[in-house]
This record gives sequence, C-alpha cells and structure tokens, in this order.
Amino acid sequence: MAEKDITQMEEENLTEEKQIDEEEATDTSDAPIEESSEEEMNDLVQEIENLKQEKEELYQRFLRTQAEFDNFKKRSQKEKEADRKYKAQDLVTELLPAIDNFERALQVEVTDENKNLLDGISMVYRQLVEALKSQGVEIIEAVGKEFDPNLHQAVMQVEDDNFESNIVVEDLQKGYLIKDRVIRPAMVKVNK
Amino acid sequence: MAEKDITQMEEENLTEEKQIDEEEATDTSDAPIEESSEEEMNDLVQEIENLKQEKEELYQRFLRTQAEFDNFKKRSQKEKEADRKYKAQDLVTELLPAIDNFERALQVEVTDENKNLLDGISMVYRQLVEALKSQGVEIIEAVGKEFDPNLHQAVMQVEDDNFESNIVVEDLQKGYLIKDRVIRPAMVKVNK
Repeated sequence: MAEKDITQMEEENLTEEKQIDEEEATDTSDAPIEESSEEEMNDLVQEIENLKQEKEELYQRFLRTQAEFDNFKKRSQKEKEADRKYKAQDLVTELLPAIDNFERALQVEVTDENKNLLDGISMVYRQLVEALKSQGVEIIEAVGKEFDPNLHQAVMQVEDDNFESNIVVEDLQKGYLIKDRVIRPAMVKVNK
Repeated sequence: MAEKDITQMEEENLTEEKQIDEEEATDTSDAPIEESSEEEMNDLVQEIENLKQEKEELYQRFLRTQAEFDNFKKRSQKEKEADRKYKAQDLVTELLPAIDNFERALQVEVTDENKNLLDGISMVYRQLVEALKSQGVEIIEAVGKEFDPNLHQAVMQVEDDNFESNIVVEDLQKGYLIKDRVIRPAMVKVNK
C-alpha cells in the first residue's frame, strides 16, 4: 500500500509540473523580450535546480525501493528455507501419540500364538520410525545423558547410586527432534 | 545483479552530470555577457530538456522496479501457500509402505490369544490414519466408482456381470491424495 501511494504521488507530481511548464511558457511569450531575458534566465536556472532536486529525490526513492526489494527477497528466501526444513513437523506431532501407543502395544509377552503377528507389526513399527528418520525426525537420547532442560522434561527425581548426579535414569516418554528443533521433550526421571 | 548494475549506472550518470555542470559554469563566465546570453539560455533550455528526460527515465525505472517487486511478492506468496499446502507430502510418501504392511498384518484371523494385541494395534492403525487425515491426506475411493485414470491405475481387467462397464471392481492397493494432489493412485481391477 505504502509503495502504491508513493507511485501515485509521483504521478501527481509529474502532472503538476507539466501544468507549471505550460503556464511558464504562456507567461514568457507575453513579456517584452529585453526585459524578460534575465528574469527568464533566472526562471530557467530555478527550474534546473528544481528538476535536479526532484531527480535526486526520485533517485533516493528508487534506491529505497530497491533496498526494500532486496531485503524482501532475502527474508522470503529464509522463510522458505525454514518452512521446508521443518515441513514434516505438523504431521509428526499428530503421529506421535500413535507411535507411543504402538510402543506400548508391542510390550506384550511373546507367545507361540502371537509371535507371527508381533513379528509383522514390529517390522511395521521399524518402518514407521525409518520413514520419520528420512524426514529428519530423531528420538532424543536420554538415559545415561546429563539432564538438559532443552531436551528433557524432568517429571521425577530419584536417588540412585548407580548413576552420577543430574543424569537421566529413565525415559518415561520418548522425546523427538525434527532436525535441530524439539517437537516434544523426553519425559524423564533424573538422579539427584 | 541486474538491479545493482542499474544502480551503479545511475550513480555514474549523476557523477557525469555534476562534471558537465561545472564545465558549463566555467564556460559561461569567460564569454562576453551580451553574446553569451542567448547561447546560455539555449544551454539552460537544453539542460532542462535533458533533466526532464533523465527524470522521466528514472521514473520509468522506478515504476519497473516497483512492478517487479509487486510481482515477486505475489509469486512468493503463491509459492509459500503451495509449499504449506502440500508440506506433509514427502513424509506421507515415506509412510505409505508401512501403512500398507500394517493393513496386511491386521488381516490375520482373530483368536482368543491374539484378540487383545489385535485390538491394541487396530487402534494404533486408526490413530495413524486420523493423523494423516488431519494433514489433508485422504484415501482415494475406488471400488464401485467409475475408472478415473487420474486417480486409479488399472492393473487388471475383469468381466463381471455384477458391475457395469468401466467400474472399479477391486482395490489391490489403496491410493492416497493430499488435498487435491495424488500422492499415489489406487491400483485397481476394472470391469471391461
């Protein structure tokens, strides 16, 4: 909108000038030649000054538009890259509860009767995880790592002599990253 | 690059003009007053003409840059919308083989022993399909529909009196759409 306004103003300026030019032309033709000569010259010099100033203003406006255009290009390129980098995020966010439930379902005891079915759906589970990986989705490492509030959400504190202080002892719900962005932090037990 | 060049040219033009102005100023001061008067006037009129022309050219250049900028904005807005509309497509494409296998795994016979497990993973399957739906992914309707080469890929032809001609009789592999775009056509049997 702002740019349109400037353009319109510029058009109005040009129209005004044309009118002024015509008026000047009429004025000078009526005046006596000798007397008008110096005056006319002054007018011309003045007009040159005006034109130079207008040209300079227009040039500055042109430069600003160009700079604005360049900035817009850079910004929209960055936005596009960010959009593409994290594009799978919304779908992944929707998929995570299903993945969580899938993991719970797979924790049944293996019997002769369910072995084939379990093998089949375990393969499906691995395929799903691979598909997520192919789009930059990674499980956040937790157990044995130092507690990191950017990646881990502490839901319990324990005292366990087998682990050092501030180390993640158990992963209660897996966390996920897409590239360098946390989709969901890991919910963890941390050693005091 | 092209825009930078224009800017540089413009700067050079401005510099050139300044030099010409200085030269003219020197010339006129040396000439006799009477004789130079008309000549000087002509020079001034000529300079005004030049300035007007340069200003007009600059203005046209300004308008072109503005138009280019407006077009760029519109184009990048459209690209952004398309990127966002179909952003889940790559991940969905990767997930489809797992979904296919999931459906095959669920086709086992229900027994007392596998019933709980089957119920659990059937729920997981429905959750996955819902997650896909939430991002605009839909299963292509096939059986009972007229064969549509944009949505269906005919892998077999049959003769079945129960169906009319050119109607899809069986869906051998589900097809998927994301919004209005086919991710994978349905592989179908078509009645002759």
